Amino acid sequence: MPDWGLLDPLSSPNSAATDDAAILTALVQTESALTLAWLDTGLAPDWVSTIDLDRVHLDRDAIAAGTRSGGNPVIPLVSQLRTHVDAVREGAGDWVHRGATSQDILDTALMLVASRALSISAVHLRATASDLAALAEKHRRTPMVGRTLTQHAAPITFGAKAATWLDGALAAEAALTAATTPVQLAGAVGTGGSFADLTGDPAAGARLRAAFAARLGLADAGRSWQAERSPVVSVASALALVIGALGRIATDVLVLARTEVGEVSEGSGGRSSAMPQKQNPTTAVLIRSAALQAPGLLATVHSGMLVEDERPSGAWHAEWLALRSLLRLAIEAAEATSTLVKSLVVDTERMSVNLDASFGLAWSEHAQSLLTRELGRAAASAIVSRAVAVTSNELSFGAALAAELDGRVIDLSPETIYPATDAVIDAALARFEGTTK
Amino acid sequence: MPDWGLLDPLSSPNSAATDDAAILTALVQTESALTLAWLDTGLAPDWVSTIDLDRVHLDRDAIAAGTRSGGNPVIPLVSQLRTHVDAVREGAGDWVHRGATSQDILDTALMLVASRALSISAVHLRATASDLAALAEKHRRTPMVGRTLTQHAAPITFGAKAATWLDGALAAEAALTAATTPVQLAGAVGTGGSFADLTGDPAAGARLRAAFAARLGLADAGRSWQAERSPVVSVASALALVIGALGRIATDVLVLARTEVGEVSEGSGGRSSAMPQKQNPTTAVLIRSAALQAPGLLATVHSGMLVEDERPSGAWHAEWLALRSLLRLAIEAAEATSTLVKSLVVDTERMSVNLDASFGLAWSEHAQSLLTRELGRAAASAIVSRAVAVTSNELSFGAALAAELDGRVIDLSPETIYPATDAVIDAALARFEGTTK
Amino acid sequence: MPDWGLLDPLSSPNSAATDDAAILTALVQTESALTLAWLDTGLAPDWVSTIDLDRVHLDRDAIAAGTRSGGNPVIPLVSQLRTHVDAVREGAGDWVHRGATSQDILDTALMLVASRALSISAVHLRATASDLAALAEKHRRTPMVGRTLTQHAAPITFGAKAATWLDGALAAEAALTAATTPVQLAGAVGTGGSFADLTGDPAAGARLRAAFAARLGLADAGRSWQAERSPVVSVASALALVIGALGRIATDVLVLARTEVGEVSEGSGGRSSAMPQKQNPTTAVLIRSAALQAPGLLATVHSGMLVEDERPSGAWHAEWLALRSLLRLAIEAAEATSTLVKSLVVDTERMSVNLDASFGLAWSEHAQSLLTRELGRAAASAIVSRAVAVTSNELSFGAALAAELDGRVIDLSPETIYPATDAVIDAALARFEGTTK
Amino acid sequence: MPDWGLLDPLSSPNSAATDDAAILTALVQTESALTLAWLDTGLAPDWVSTIDLDRVHLDRDAIAAGTRSGGNPVIPLVSQLRTHVDAVREGAGDWVHRGATSQDILDTALMLVASRALSISAVHLRATASDLAALAEKHRRTPMVGRTLTQHAAPITFGAKAATWLDGALAAEAALTAATTPVQLAGAVGTGGSFADLTGDPAAGARLRAAFAARLGLADAGRSWQAERSPVVSVASALALVIGALGRIATDVLVLARTEVGEVSEGSGGRSSAMPQKQNPTTAVLIRSAALQAPGLLATVHSGMLVEDERPSGAWHAEWLALRSLLRLAIEAAEATSTLVKSLVVDTERMSVNLDASFGLAWSEHAQSLLTRELGRAAASAIVSRAVAVTSNELSFGAALAAELDGRVIDLSPETIYPATDAVIDAALARFEGTTK
Repeated sequence: MPDWGLLDPLSSPNSAATDDAAILTALVQTESALTLAWLDTGLAPDWVSTIDLDRVHLDRDAIAAGTRSGGNPVIPLVSQLRTHVDAVREGAGDWVHRGATSQDILDTALMLVASRALSISAVHLRATASDLAALAEKHRRTPMVGRTLTQHAAPITFGAKAATWLDGALAAEAALTAATTPVQLAGAVGTGGSFADLTGDPAAGARLRAAFAARLGLADAGRSWQAERSPVVSVASALALVIGALGRIATDVLVLARTEVGEVSEGSGGRSSAMPQKQNPTTAVLIRSAALQAPGLLATVHSGMLVEDERPSGAWHAEWLALRSLLRLAIEAAEATSTLVKSLVVDTERMSVNLDASFGLAWSEHAQSLLTRELGRAAASAIVSRAVAVTSNELSFGAALAAELDGRVIDLSPETIYPATDAVIDAALARFEGTTK
Repeated sequence: MPDWGLLDPLSSPNSAATDDAAILTALVQTESALTLAWLDTGLAPDWVSTIDLDRVHLDRDAIAAGTRSGGNPVIPLVSQLRTHVDAVREGAGDWVHRGATSQDILDTALMLVASRALSISAVHLRATASDLAALAEKHRRTPMVGRTLTQHAAPITFGAKAATWLDGALAAEAALTAATTPVQLAGAVGTGGSFADLTGDPAAGARLRAAFAARLGLADAGRSWQAERSPVVSVASALALVIGALGRIATDVLVLARTEVGEVSEGSGGRSSAMPQKQNPTTAVLIRSAALQAPGLLATVHSGMLVEDERPSGAWHAEWLALRSLLRLAIEAAEATSTLVKSLVVDTERMSVNLDASFGLAWSEHAQSLLTRELGRAAASAIVSRAVAVTSNELSFGAALAAELDGRVIDLSPETIYPATDAVIDAALARFEGTTK
Repeated sequence: MPDWGLLDPLSSPNSAATDDAAILTALVQTESALTLAWLDTGLAPDWVSTIDLDRVHLDRDAIAAGTRSGGNPVIPLVSQLRTHVDAVREGAGDWVHRGATSQDILDTALMLVASRALSISAVHLRATASDLAALAEKHRRTPMVGRTLTQHAAPITFGAKAATWLDGALAAEAALTAATTPVQLAGAVGTGGSFADLTGDPAAGARLRAAFAARLGLADAGRSWQAERSPVVSVASALALVIGALGRIATDVLVLARTEVGEVSEGSGGRSSAMPQKQNPTTAVLIRSAALQAPGLLATVHSGMLVEDERPSGAWHAEWLALRSLLRLAIEAAEATSTLVKSLVVDTERMSVNLDASFGLAWSEHAQSLLTRELGRAAASAIVSRAVAVTSNELSFGAALAAELDGRVIDLSPETIYPATDAVIDAALARFEGTTK
Repeated sequence: MPDWGLLDPLSSPNSAATDDAAILTALVQTESALTLAWLDTGLAPDWVSTIDLDRVHLDRDAIAAGTRSGGNPVIPLVSQLRTHVDAVREGAGDWVHRGATSQDILDTALMLVASRALSISAVHLRATASDLAALAEKHRRTPMVGRTLTQHAAPITFGAKAATWLDGALAAEAALTAATTPVQLAGAVGTGGSFADLTGDPAAGARLRAAFAARLGLADAGRSWQAERSPVVSVASALALVIGALGRIATDVLVLARTEVGEVSEGSGGRSSAMPQKQNPTTAVLIRSAALQAPGLLATVHSGMLVEDERPSGAWHAEWLALRSLLRLAIEAAEATSTLVKSLVVDTERMSVNLDASFGLAWSEHAQSLLTRELGRAAASAIVSRAVAVTSNELSFGAALAAELDGRVIDLSPETIYPATDAVIDAALARFEGTTK
């Protein structure tokens, strides 16, 4: 039992869909689907329906040993499957892996695992999006300071920030939705020649591929992608985008959770082994850590595109673990972000205090825009700059500005920004609503 | 003139669409489009139409210096633009960069450059796809050996191989087509508050964004993506997929062009500085080299997703050069692949010789499939294995097989594989035809 | 038992040194070493020597669950260890993890695992280097064609090529040797304050760290690297260099093993699930696939350098799996390369045939150099170019050259290159000998 | 003038050492050094000393065009150099590029540029280290809160933090110092055969290489690394480590510079195009952005290790731009960090205020360690936990603790941590002093 998650804090129970057991199951299901595809297309005798691969007891050690010598796990797996079914009925093994090459099975099984991982991630993303929509609505009128390049910039609302988190979750969902997971089935050199030879029908390959896809609930790309890996790269790109979009939410949370900022906290943070008082934003930390791992993994999958021949000498093999890691991280990050968002504690008072901490300076751009409308940019800029220059803990920016304006008071209250932030929130909520239909 | 392509052999003239001059032009066009958007929405007085930013003579050194101190090139650019137009008409500068933040302009200008680069790449991809379709058709009946893991595997046709290259080109095209390049326009903290303040209309931000997009021919995502970078990542992912898909074609060509293989050559290869006899497949080498650079660049763009606050402290800045490199490599690789394919010299005789070089062993899987249909897998496998075992340069596999079959001759001629390879080619050509409508 | 190597063909038995069991063992050994360091420095009472952490039966499920909530595996591990030893003797738990923070233990345990992995890799590298030295010596006079940019270039010997492989193995060894694996021990915020507080001695932290390092056989860097990750990055860089250097040997082997080239083969290659005649260079394929995975993993470890605060919010956690993967791949690649080299079958006749296949054109640079010495570059180049131009399968380059030289015959035999290739081999062997002392 | 730094804010004037002009100069200097090496070894006639390559006026457009067709810039460069010197004295061109292949020249020229870039970076690193040493000394008694996982953890001093920054700068320096930049010189296929042929002396290649290295002030590795790229990877690894170590300092500064934290600021920050009040930590942002770019670039250089043949089909070409970018970023980051550190404004009062902001809770680990020494862990933990639980803005942790201890007051003043932090600082300063000798 080499790796059970000791170094992957988010893995349990999230790894169940992507672990070796899941992949082995998918490999068997893929072989089973191929056998059934022969039946579904009328190309196998009826008795083939009695072949039951799912019940075969597999010798995992023999598979491991065979994986090393053959270079992939399908070769020893097929050998075991055939032996077992032949023992039940002689010749049954002929209908296992019939016409396929090991890449057909492994590529398809990984797409099957990917398809399931995408679905699981999508469920968590939907919950996250829904909770973010509620958060945006709830905090529609919760003013806070917007920050750029680490500095106080201008007021926003927490609802508007949550709306941009929602944008990220919806972008992640859209990427998942756009990802297709096709079967691969084309025999040794990608031409489907074995299916033609085994049936005498040149169209058999295409028919079997369609039936195979239908059995597995996967797409039929109408072609072999044995040596043209854009389908794998597309899935990996979608996964990395999902992880990154969630990592951004976590990264933003981590800044807001800093002790000095204190605007949000995790409902139940992690403890320290050394410091009794600490409450760590552990979930956000782990989501961010997932997002830091994704770019390198995606780069590896991309390296796999450089395929020579009808099957390459290493590029294909290099995809497997990186793709699996991306699938796992996507599930983990999606589940954890769902937890993070659902349990996020928002300190609206602290948001208000922070916004006011710089003596109103966060309102200077707002004031300048208002005055520009009236006086032109040069005059507005001069007035605001003078007011900024004299603002201090004894003289608020609002008061300094009023002094510059001969006593005229510019409204620097949060109410003045709500029309704009409401528009941001409304647009995001409308997009969210559009995806729920 | 720091970098003019000395270390980027494919750059000239391909860099014209992505070099600093192109980006500076795009920045000015972006500012110009914003000014016009104010007019288009009826939010600016008519005289604003006389502001002409395109004619402003820019002081590049001052921009370079200002880029360092401000952290981006927009700040010094705006300063110059305003000074110039104010000199023509006082107050005109008020309508330059009005309500925008520098990120609005730089993000949009890079999307404008990206949009153009995508178009240029698409033209080359179309030509490539068209030439590959012709190649697939022309070599429909050109047998060659299919190879897996560097070894002779089973016969294919060069037409079938070209069809999978066409698949790659079409996948690349589809990725380009799916990529959207939206404008960014939302002011300092992404809420569009400045536009509301400058107009008194909370909907002004959305209206200006739509007009801005229309002027530039870019998309309007209906939102700000200042801190949610999935639009940038999506474009970068598409570019990396394009480069990788083309890199795969080049990688495959390079194997076929090896001296010992000799099945293809470049129409006009490169020379050596040391070896008088050499003809190097330089174009394919350079395309492959582009593809080796893409994964790392894509990883960098992905790192940029981890945005804190309303503008992050480095993640945004880290995107620029990596995105530009991907745009440049995509154009370069697309143009070079178009050249490579158009001028590819195919040695059909050598393909035939290579196929026959292993005494017919490349036909063993074909024979086994045919015999399996008839005799079952066990018998077929035993017969073929025995024939394989005795095949040598004095006894062809076909003859050895006939001996095993009591003199019965299995047809091991190329004609037997055409039904399957034709199906592959026809399907690819049909997909190509589907994209030409 | 989530991941046992199904997607990592080289993993078994190579993963034993890096799997979760090995890491859990290292964590316990690290805690044990810390307890002993308290004794070794005279800072603990003698009875502390009776604490036996190695015998503690650990509840793996509880560790997994605690890893999720606390963000790392040390917190739940320490809790179990303390409970167990407290049950044996009250207060014994006080001497477990005393003064440490979880990062001290995890960082050190990973360095312990790294140290062992480096040693294992080094053993395989030594065997590889030794076999390569023998190969270089054995094939000192085995002529073959040197190739550049996929094309025949000029003659070399296989011994000279093996010497450059040896260079790579020695460079990999040197990188391993230069890698240092220091302990980390500095308490919650990296200052060692807890050790001072627990002992009243400000030097206690440094003394304990030295004793801790001595117990584990690791280095003492004289400082904390809790937030300054260059030690981790240095180890990762060395591992990636090792994997890459071995990947280059495998990549070179794969070209030479191509059916059309046929100059080397693996002693026992892998079989195909579809093609009866195939012998795949599986080991080389898998080594190359390891090398394709390393760059992305290294990039992830490098991302971990961007540490804020005294412990960062994700960057540290992102290192773990990537570092472990690099350790595992290094062992796997080193073991596999040792096998590859030891069992490599060299077909010297095929090398000779290939060298001669281009009618002597591979000698053109040699001839040109010889003639340049005599006649100057212009004349030599003209003569050789004319000879190259008329060379064909009916007129060898040597004969064409003789015709250009009025019958004078230039020696184009392999003997002419041996002085140069012997110098290459001798220099490499001398370096190898230098490392065996 | 395609790229002059518009998207690289730190580039000017830092790109002068790495731009195309610098590389072209280095290429010419490399060719010149080779010609002189022939003289230095007594293998050329004396008149060869009159050949002056530095004065040759180069046609840049012809070089660009030739780079595309030949795949690298050396081929067209050599052609121009030879034409020019031949025009001065017939036959002089024979002594230009004599025996070399284009890779010899480009590899060596890039190492020459690297050597210079490493030196420039080292100067900035030395200044940075010196300023950091002074900062550590100056703030030896400036208490501040240490933070882990974004939360207040335990007290440190700013001097101790600066000492860990110094550790990073010293680690970066050590990496630079360990990096070697060897010449490459071995002719077409890496055996030095041309030099033997041109001289009749098999040792000529080694002698010329040594003289070549001496002329350029580069190392002689005693071998060719044309196809064994560990020297390039080693340099790239060192550069990435340097950039990362500096990026960590910037990342830490950025957190401390946050408006809510406010413990440091840049002497002269950047302005905003939209917000009049802002002072951005622009320099730190740009250093961090450099560090975000390095991992992907390093991954690309690592990909270049997978070399087949005596020169590979793309892997070599893919190194160039990535290596140059790393060199440039290293200089930029080193120069900028030197500026950042030199002008860093430290707000010691704010540090003190932040430390006290959590009512003394940052002292809880300190208190627990002190009490553990006395009472054992269980009792200490119970007491401290109770005190933590009742701490509030009305009851400090110190007071709560005293209440738990029946009025006994534990010293929670900064003085109590100085022994430990002084030890950290002293050790770092001693290491720094050790490097100045």
